[in-house]
Amino acid sequence: MAKRLLIGDPLTSEKLDDQLLPKKMALPIFASDALSSVAYAPQELLMILLIGGTALLTFSPWVAGAVVLVLVVVVTSYRQLIKAYPSGGGDYEVARTNLGEIPGVIVGAALLVDYILTVAVSVASGVDNIISAIPELNPFRIEFAVGFVVLIVIVNLRGVREASAVFAIPTYLFIGSVALMIVVGLARTVAGDPPVASSADYAVQAESLTQAAMILLVLRAFSSGCSALTGVEAVSNGVPAFRKPKIRNAQTTLSLMGIIAIVLFVGLTIVALVSGVRYAEDPCHLVGFDCTQPQPSLMAQVAAATFGMGSIPFFVIQAATACVLLLAANTAFNGFPLLGSTLARDGYAPKSLNTRGDRLVYSNGMIVLGIVAIIVLIVYQADQTDLIQLYIIGVFVSFSLGQIGMVRHWRRALRGLQDLTPEAAKQDSARYERRSAISGLIINAIGAGLTVAVLIIVTITKFTHGAWLVFLAIPILAVLMVGVNRYYRDVEHEIEMDDTVHFGAEGDVAIVLVNRLQKPIVKAIDYALAANHEKTLAVHVAVNEADAARLQKDWAEHEVPVPLVIIDSPYRAYTSPVAGFIQKYREKHGSSVVTVYLPQYIVGHWWEAFLHNRRARRLANQLMLLHGVSITLVPWLLDSSEIIYGRRSRPLPGQQRGGQPMPEVGHRPHHLSRGSDETPPSAG
Amino acid sequence: MAKRLLIGDPLTSEKLDDQLLPKKMALPIFASDALSSVAYAPQELLMILLIGGTALLTFSPWVAGAVVLVLVVVVTSYRQLIKAYPSGGGDYEVARTNLGEIPGVIVGAALLVDYILTVAVSVASGVDNIISAIPELNPFRIEFAVGFVVLIVIVNLRGVREASAVFAIPTYLFIGSVALMIVVGLARTVAGDPPVASSADYAVQAESLTQAAMILLVLRAFSSGCSALTGVEAVSNGVPAFRKPKIRNAQTTLSLMGIIAIVLFVGLTIVALVSGVRYAEDPCHLVGFDCTQPQPSLMAQVAAATFGMGSIPFFVIQAATACVLLLAANTAFNGFPLLGSTLARDGYAPKSLNTRGDRLVYSNGMIVLGIVAIIVLIVYQADQTDLIQLYIIGVFVSFSLGQIGMVRHWRRALRGLQDLTPEAAKQDSARYERRSAISGLIINAIGAGLTVAVLIIVTITKFTHGAWLVFLAIPILAVLMVGVNRYYRDVEHEIEMDDTVHFGAEGDVAIVLVNRLQKPIVKAIDYALAANHEKTLAVHVAVNEADAARLQKDWAEHEVPVPLVIIDSPYRAYTSPVAGFIQKYREKHGSSVVTVYLPQYIVGHWWEAFLHNRRARRLANQLMLLHGVSITLVPWLLDSSEIIYGRRSRPLPGQQRGGQPMPEVGHRPHHLSRGSDETPPSAG
Repeated sequence: MAKRLLIGDPLTSEKLDDQLLPKKMALPIFASDALSSVAYAPQELLMILLIGGTALLTFSPWVAGAVVLVLVVVVTSYRQLIKAYPSGGGDYEVARTNLGEIPGVIVGAALLVDYILTVAVSVASGVDNIISAIPELNPFRIEFAVGFVVLIVIVNLRGVREASAVFAIPTYLFIGSVALMIVVGLARTVAGDPPVASSADYAVQAESLTQAAMILLVLRAFSSGCSALTGVEAVSNGVPAFRKPKIRNAQTTLSLMGIIAIVLFVGLTIVALVSGVRYAEDPCHLVGFDCTQPQPSLMAQVAAATFGMGSIPFFVIQAATACVLLLAANTAFNGFPLLGSTLARDGYAPKSLNTRGDRLVYSNGMIVLGIVAIIVLIVYQADQTDLIQLYIIGVFVSFSLGQIGMVRHWRRALRGLQDLTPEAAKQDSARYERRSAISGLIINAIGAGLTVAVLIIVTITKFTHGAWLVFLAIPILAVLMVGVNRYYRDVEHEIEMDDTVHFGAEGDVAIVLVNRLQKPIVKAIDYALAANHEKTLAVHVAVNEADAARLQKDWAEHEVPVPLVIIDSPYRAYTSPVAGFIQKYREKHGSSVVTVYLPQYIVGHWWEAFLHNRRARRLANQLMLLHGVSITLVPWLLDSSEIIYGRRSRPLPGQQRGGQPMPEVGHRPHHLSRGSDETPPSAG
Repeated sequence: MAKRLLIGDPLTSEKLDDQLLPKKMALPIFASDALSSVAYAPQELLMILLIGGTALLTFSPWVAGAVVLVLVVVVTSYRQLIKAYPSGGGDYEVARTNLGEIPGVIVGAALLVDYILTVAVSVASGVDNIISAIPELNPFRIEFAVGFVVLIVIVNLRGVREASAVFAIPTYLFIGSVALMIVVGLARTVAGDPPVASSADYAVQAESLTQAAMILLVLRAFSSGCSALTGVEAVSNGVPAFRKPKIRNAQTTLSLMGIIAIVLFVGLTIVALVSGVRYAEDPCHLVGFDCTQPQPSLMAQVAAATFGMGSIPFFVIQAATACVLLLAANTAFNGFPLLGSTLARDGYAPKSLNTRGDRLVYSNGMIVLGIVAIIVLIVYQADQTDLIQLYIIGVFVSFSLGQIGMVRHWRRALRGLQDLTPEAAKQDSARYERRSAISGLIINAIGAGLTVAVLIIVTITKFTHGAWLVFLAIPILAVLMVGVNRYYRDVEHEIEMDDTVHFGAEGDVAIVLVNRLQKPIVKAIDYALAANHEKTLAVHVAVNEADAARLQKDWAEHEVPVPLVIIDSPYRAYTSPVAGFIQKYREKHGSSVVTVYLPQYIVGHWWEAFLHNRRARRLANQLMLLHGVSITLVPWLLDSSEIIYGRRSRPLPGQQRGGQPMPEVGHRPHHLSRGSDETPPSAG
C-alpha cells in the first residue's frame, strides 16, 4: 500500500532508544535552523538599510554587531536553560514552571507559530536561492515551496533517525562552502582584487528620510537582522532526542552552533558590503535592474561575485544553501511534534498529539504542521520578506518569557540555598550550587533584559508590516489551549472516584443480535455461552418474513443451543425494536446488565472497509446509550486480513498457536478501526 | 450543529410511508428531467444544422419529426416496462432478469453515468439561461453551476417530500409560460406579425459540405435532438416512490409527460424557425455577433422575440426555464440513490448505498452524485453542448438494452401461456394476458428496433465529439460492479455454515484493562462481575512506576473486589505486554475465551472527539487479532452527551427509568461512532 512505500514498515517501540541522536547528527538536525538564518538575515538587514539609500550602509557594521551581541547573549542564556530544564519543554516549560500557566501557554502558542513560520520562511528562502541559480523556475515558486513541504513531511514520517542521516551532509557542505566563500572573498579583497556584485553599480531610489525616520529604519534593519537568531531555541526543545550525557551534548551542540552562526553571519555581511551587493525590497527601485526578472538572493550575488556566475562553486553554494534551508524547515518537524506532545501531556493540546505513530514519531503533529505551513506559504505567495516580518515576533516572545522565567528559576534556587543550615551551606556542593545559581541568574538576567528590549524594538518596527497577525494568532491559540485544558480537567473531575461509586450491579443477560446464521454469529453465540451469563438470548429483528422464516429453519437445523427471539420491525427499524425488547425484558426480570454481542469484521485491504456498511456499528453505538447496556464485539477476521496480518506482523513467542498472529503496536490501526460490521444485503 | 440546520431533524422510519408521492407531485419530481430537455434539445438540433448553413434548416421539420416519433415510441414502450417491472429497477432490472448479469450491470453503469450527466447538463443549461437573461453573470458560470449542485444536494438530504413541495410550482410555471409563449408566437405569425429573433439577420459562416457530410450532419442534428428524450426513463425508476395504485399512477404520469414534452418541443422549434433564431456552436461564426459576449440561449431568443427583450414575461420564462432545469438535476438526486440502493441490494454496489440516512433518504448516494457532478462541471467548464455529447449515448445504451430485455420478457410470457392446458387457455384471464403480452411484444419490439437504430446513429455521430469517454466510463464502472459482487459472494461463502461449525468453547476469563481507578473503570469492573465470568482480572500496563503505585494504593483504598495484575512495559508499549499476558494465562489455564473490558466514552459535541485519543480503541482493534479474544465496550456517557441526547431524543415508553434516554434510529451516529476511548494524559 502507498503508505508503506512512503513511510516504511512500522517500528516496535523497543526501537525508540536507537532513534536517539549523536552530536554529529544532532547538529544538522537541531542547528540547521539557526545556521540557515545566515542565508537570509544579512540580506534582510542590508535590504532595510538600502531603503534609506546606500548612505545608510555605513550603519551596517554597527547593526550587524548588535545582532551578534544578542546572539551571543541568547546562546549563553540557553546553555543555562538546557542545564536547568533538560526535559525538552524549553521556553514553554521554563515559563510554565516559573511564571505560571498563562505565560507558559503563551510561550507554547508563540513557539507553535514559530515552528510554522520556520517551515514557511526556510522553504520560501530555499526556493528563492534555487531560483537565484536557475531563474527559469521563477514561475513555479509556490509550487516548489509546497512540493518541498510535502517532501519533508514524508521524510519525517519515516522517523527522526533516517531523516537526519539523509540531511547531515548538506549542513556540513553549507558550512564548509560558505566559509570558503568568505575566506576567498576576503583574501581577494586583501589581495586588492575585491569581488564585485552584479548589482554593485545599480543606483538605489532612496526615500528622503527625517532623522527620526532614519533611526526607525536602522532599528528596523536590526530587527530584520535578528532573524539570524531564529532557531536558536530548537536545541533546548530537542534535548530528549540527544544521546547521553544529554545535557552536555546539547550544550556543546548549542555553543558550536552559535560560533558557526556568528562566523558565517559576520563574514557574509562583510563580503556582501565589500562586493557592493544591492538588494531592494521592491526590485524596481534598483535603477538599471530589469525588475520583471527575479532578484538574485544576496547569497547568490556574493557567490557569483566571488567565484563567478555559473561557476561550479557558485552552484555548489546555492545547492548547499537551498538544502540547509530545507533542513531548517525539517528542524521544525522535529521540534513542533515534540512540543505538541509536551503540551498534550500537560493537557493543553489534544492527546492525539502525544501518540506515536507507526514509525515512533508523533505523526499527527507533523501532518498538522505540514498542512498549516503549506497554507501560509500559499497565502503569502512564498514571499520570504513578508514572512520574516511575522517570524521574528514569535521568536522573541518566547525568548523573553523564557529568559524571565529563568531569572525567576535562579532566584528561587538561591532562596532555597539560603534556607540551608549553616553546616550544609558550608559544603562544597552547596557552594558550587550557589555559585552556578548566581552566574545563571546574571546570565539570564542580561538575556532577559536584552531579549525584552529587542522584542519591544521588533514589535514597534514590524507591527505595521504584518506582525499584527501574529499578535492575533498567539492569543487565539493560547485561549484554545486553555480551553482544551479546562475540558480535560472537567472530564477528569467528572470521572474521578467519589462516594457514589459502588459495586454490585444486579441481573445479567446476554443478547446476541442475529441477522442470518453464519459463522461469525455462531462464534458470537459460542463466546456468549462460554462467558456463562445468567441468561443468553439470540434476537433477530425481522425486517422481512422470508429471512425470519429461513433463520428459524436454520436454527432448528443446526440445533443452536440458544433460544431465538424474533422481533417484528414493519418499518425496517433496528434500534427501536431492540431497545423496546431490552426495556420490556428489564421490566419483567428486574434491572439487568445487558451485554449485546455483535460480530465485528476485520478486513485486510483498506478498500474493503467501503464494502461493509456500518449499520451494526451504528446500532451498537445507539444501544450503548441505553441504561445498563454494554457491547461485546466478537472479531471475525476475513481471509484477507489474515493474509495481510499474517505476512506483515512478527508473532510473539508461542503466538502462532493462537492461529492469528499478533501485530505490532500501532500496526495499521486505521484499517482495523475501519473493520466494519456485517448485515445481510437484503436488509435495506 | 450545522448539519441539523441544513438537513433538518432526523425522521423515524415510521415516516417512510408519508414520503410517497401523489401524481401532482410526482410529475414535477420525475418528469421535470424529460420536460426540461425541451430547453436545450431544439437549440442543439438547430445549432448542428446551422453548421451546414441556413439552407440546412429546411431539414429541421423532418429531423424534429423523427425525434418526436422516437419519443412517442419510447414513452409507449416504457408504459409496458412500468407495468411489467414496477419495483423501480427500471431498465437495469429488466436487462438483468431477461438478458443476464452482464447486460444488467452495463445498463446499471450506463444509468449511473446518465444521472451524473443529467445533473451536469441540466445545471449547465440552467446557468446558461440565467446568463442569457443577465449576461453580467457570465464570468461566474462555473461558480454558479457548482453552487446550484451543492444547493440541490442539501435540499435533497432533507428528504424527497419536502424537495418536491419546494419544486412543484416552477415546473408548472415552466409548462404554462412556454406554452403561452408558443401560442403567442404562433398567433402573431398568423396575424402577420411574426416574432423576429435578435440573431435573425446574422449571416452564418457555413462549411461547404459534400453530400455525405450533409447527411452525416443531419444525422448529428437528429442525435442532438434526441437529447429531448433524456429523462424519460426517470419515471420507470421511480415507481416505488408513487402513491398507490403505483403502476397506474406512474403510467399516467409518464404519458402526460410525453404529451407535454412533444407539444413544447415541437412548438418551440416552430417558433424558433419562424423567428429565425441563429445559434452557432462557435458564436464567432455568426457574422455580426460580438462573440466576446455570451450567446443567448434559443429559449431566451425566442422569449425576447415574442414578448420583447427585458419584458416581464421574458424574465418569467427565463426564470421558469432555469428552475425546471435545476429540478431536472434534482430528478437525478431521486433516481441515482434509488438505483444505487437497488444495485447495493443485489450486491453490485457498496452496501452503504442501501442505508437510509437520518432523513430516510439514501444520503450516501446523493453525496457521491453531487461530488462527481461537480467535478464533471468543472472539467467541462459547465459547457452544455460538450456535456450533451456524452449524455445521449448512455441514455440510449440503457434504452436499447431495456427494450431488448422487454422483448425477451414478453416472449417468455407467451411461451408460459402456450404451456397452459387448453381449458385454462380458453379462460378470459388467459386470453387477456395473451393479448396484452402480444401487444407488449409488438410495442417493445418496435421500441427496441428504433432505440438500437438511434444508438447506432448517435454513436457514429457523437463518438469523436467526446462520447468515447462514456464508452470508457461505462465498462470500467461495470467491471467495478462485478468485482464488488464477487467480493460479497466470496465473503458470503467464507462465512456460511459448514461442518466445521460447532459450539463449546472452553474456559472463560474477563480482563478489565485499568489505567487509573476512575468511575468508567469501576463501571466496567462492575459489569464484568455481573456477567459472572469464571475468572475476572484487572490488568494495568505500567508505563511508569508512579502511576502503578498510585493505582495499587487506590485499589486497596476502595477495596475493589477484583485482583489487580500489573504488567511492566519499559517501552511504553501497550499491546504486546497485554498480548503476552493473555498468551501466558492461556498456556497456564488451557485454551480460554478472553473477554477484554474497555470503557468507551460517548461524547456529545463533535469536537470532543478530537480531544480523546484513540489508543484504547487501537488497543482493542489489535487485541481482536488475537485468538479467542473479544472486546466488551462499557459505555460511559460524558455529561455533554447526556445533555445533548437528553434534549434531542424522544424516550420510548418507560425509558426514562433507564436514566439515559433512547435516541432515534440513525440519530447522530456520526458522533457516536466518533465516541472515543480514554487513556490518562500521563500515558503516552
